[in-house]
Amino acid sequence: MARLVMKFGGTSVGSLDRIRAAAQRVKAETDAGHQVAVVVSAMAGETNRMIDLTQRISPLHDAREYDVVVSCGEQVSVGLMAMVLQDLGVTARSWLGWQIPIHTDDIHGSARIQRIETAELERRLSQGEVAVVAGFQGLGSNNRITTLGRGGSDTSAVALAAALDAERCDIYTDVEGIYTTDPRIVTGARKLDKITYEEMLELASLGAKVLQTRSVEMAMNHGVRVQVRSTFSEAPGTLVVDEEEIVEQRIVSGVTYSTDEAKITLRHVADRPGVAAAIFGPLAEANIVVDMIVQNVSEDGKSTDLTFTVQRDQLARAVSVLDKVKETIGAAVITPDADVVKVSIVGVGMRSHAGVAQAMFQALSEKNINIQVISTSEIKVSVLIAADYTELAVRALHSVFNLDSAGSAA
Amino acid sequence: MARLVMKFGGTSVGSLDRIRAAAQRVKAETDAGHQVAVVVSAMAGETNRMIDLTQRISPLHDAREYDVVVSCGEQVSVGLMAMVLQDLGVTARSWLGWQIPIHTDDIHGSARIQRIETAELERRLSQGEVAVVAGFQGLGSNNRITTLGRGGSDTSAVALAAALDAERCDIYTDVEGIYTTDPRIVTGARKLDKITYEEMLELASLGAKVLQTRSVEMAMNHGVRVQVRSTFSEAPGTLVVDEEEIVEQRIVSGVTYSTDEAKITLRHVADRPGVAAAIFGPLAEANIVVDMIVQNVSEDGKSTDLTFTVQRDQLARAVSVLDKVKETIGAAVITPDADVVKVSIVGVGMRSHAGVAQAMFQALSEKNINIQVISTSEIKVSVLIAADYTELAVRALHSVFNLDSAGSAA
Repeated sequence: MARLVMKFGGTSVGSLDRIRAAAQRVKAETDAGHQVAVVVSAMAGETNRMIDLTQRISPLHDAREYDVVVSCGEQVSVGLMAMVLQDLGVTARSWLGWQIPIHTDDIHGSARIQRIETAELERRLSQGEVAVVAGFQGLGSNNRITTLGRGGSDTSAVALAAALDAERCDIYTDVEGIYTTDPRIVTGARKLDKITYEEMLELASLGAKVLQTRSVEMAMNHGVRVQVRSTFSEAPGTLVVDEEEIVEQRIVSGVTYSTDEAKITLRHVADRPGVAAAIFGPLAEANIVVDMIVQNVSEDGKSTDLTFTVQRDQLARAVSVLDKVKETIGAAVITPDADVVKVSIVGVGMRSHAGVAQAMFQALSEKNINIQVISTSEIKVSVLIAADYTELAVRALHSVFNLDSAGSAA
Repeated sequence: MARLVMKFGGTSVGSLDRIRAAAQRVKAETDAGHQVAVVVSAMAGETNRMIDLTQRISPLHDAREYDVVVSCGEQVSVGLMAMVLQDLGVTARSWLGWQIPIHTDDIHGSARIQRIETAELERRLSQGEVAVVAGFQGLGSNNRITTLGRGGSDTSAVALAAALDAERCDIYTDVEGIYTTDPRIVTGARKLDKITYEEMLELASLGAKVLQTRSVEMAMNHGVRVQVRSTFSEAPGTLVVDEEEIVEQRIVSGVTYSTDEAKITLRHVADRPGVAAAIFGPLAEANIVVDMIVQNVSEDGKSTDLTFTVQRDQLARAVSVLDKVKETIGAAVITPDADVVKVSIVGVGMRSHAGVAQAMFQALSEKNINIQVISTSEIKVSVLIAADYTELAVRALHSVFNLDSAGSAA
């Protein structure tokens, strides 16, 4: 008998029939004798509908009131899920963030979970009652509803699994697990049986949308075994675990890409101390996140070029911020480019293998793909390339690092 | 400077534009220096949408989970209303039932308000902050969300007005006030300036759908001055007040009708002690409310006829209950009839005027309308007639009791 947290995302509870199907998965676990806490998202589309209401009524609204409105999606889901479980003969009750409570800080709209009071939940779990917990929401110190930001239900689930000391946190979603790359681009993409927290963290922040980045951080920090699996299939998913649990060491575990990028090049920037601060200070103040940065070596000792990336939906705002500081940084020429993509390879095996980055650059070069910006960490290499080459680059890298499944390897 | 409760119903907050218009009404009162608590319903249609979800997922659902789901409509409304008020420069925050808290009993789905903690609300009201309170919902003793039943936001508003010792509770709705009868039937129907609690209570329970019956009871018990007025017009509405406040004493204040009725006639019922109990006991057990009852004098001393009314939507269930006890009550013949309407006259003036019922029967007789069942109280007379005669009867009574407005009196 184990204690499990099962999390169902928006598409997994996207209709009444799907809620029924998800409830059947829960029943299967309780029938097997497990204690189960279920975390549910809002029915697909509902959160967007609520966000749209708040935007239309008042574009610059109070984040505390935003949280009151958008937390309703999960509130509806938990009630419906508890009803269906009861219909199936499973003892169950719904729990809202404030009822448990799931204590968070007071950063409304993107709050962080601080503490979960589990005594009553544990008492009921041990009596066989299923706890149906609203994802995405918590309670601030001011007794007001908070929400955790988009995808926050993953974090709710992992935090609950940590607090309940659960054996596993199963994230039910609309894909069968974590793949070596996007199967829509590479038909030979393989589902991974296991992946390390570090790799998953890189993949999540580099464009893989399966898990919220913060949820992976939390799983890593608390050692929560996370399984990503499909609501619509009985196949085992991908386990996200500690590096020690993984026997077969791959050099590269996955190839991912992100189309959320945009590039800004500043030409003729004065090459003197303080210029970088004059550029990135105002961007930071405007809450624009800068990702990759490359500065060219100055040719004449007077001016230089600087290239960096921002999120694509922040490009226009970034350009307008830079326009205002143009004179200060030396009358630079600002060239925005939204037509780029960030392609990355991720793998803990890179730590012990030299030449991985070189192999990546070589493979891209052989396909005549020009690399615009590079950034690396201990377990990943990312390159910015023209968007047109996305599929070509991903396929080439998937192949060169031997990720193609046997049947379809090039 | 007064303290006011302003309640906006579902149609008054039925769209974002309407929420904005309602917020303007609130701003007008705060600009005039008043302290304001706003009670809002769910946007029109939302509660029905949620109820439909609960019905479709599980017809026999847990009432506690039902309350979790259906309370979301008001949660969305308070957040949006607070946002708009803030946009208008009015300091405002939303309050959910559990945050105040509005303590109720644990009868989920039709809970009764027991106590409202107002200290924090009063502190903020006195600082000029508008409290935007979710109607319809409260907090049970088990820390779970309760709802007050359909139309419960009226009761929330009146209870809050009582707890806050407000000068007035304004119920903003889609009609201009309480009319002498339905203006769709009688063009000469007049809006009343004032009406007594007792009369309003009878009208509400006899078919007028403007106020929830329980809210009127509560207003009467706590002496809350209630004004029913239109969200869409500046015209003063109808004040519901104590009898002493009304100078012009009318004999009849209003004519109302209810199409929610159905009649059941039992023929050849054994005329012996215990038969009534054998009929009405099983109906009560099935939660079927019986309203009017008439028993004919037995002609032969052996069997008699019994006629009574139930709510139309309970007719089929009532007949099936009666079918089971048919033998016990003497093999009666059961004749259901949904084609009836209850027409009533209401007025506190009846207490001091004899012959009002007689005048009513006479007026109906002159129009050849057959009266099937009669029931009376101190301040009303109701008759059950064939549904075909509804308009004819209402117009005749409105005229005979001098309710037609000067311009259009017959």
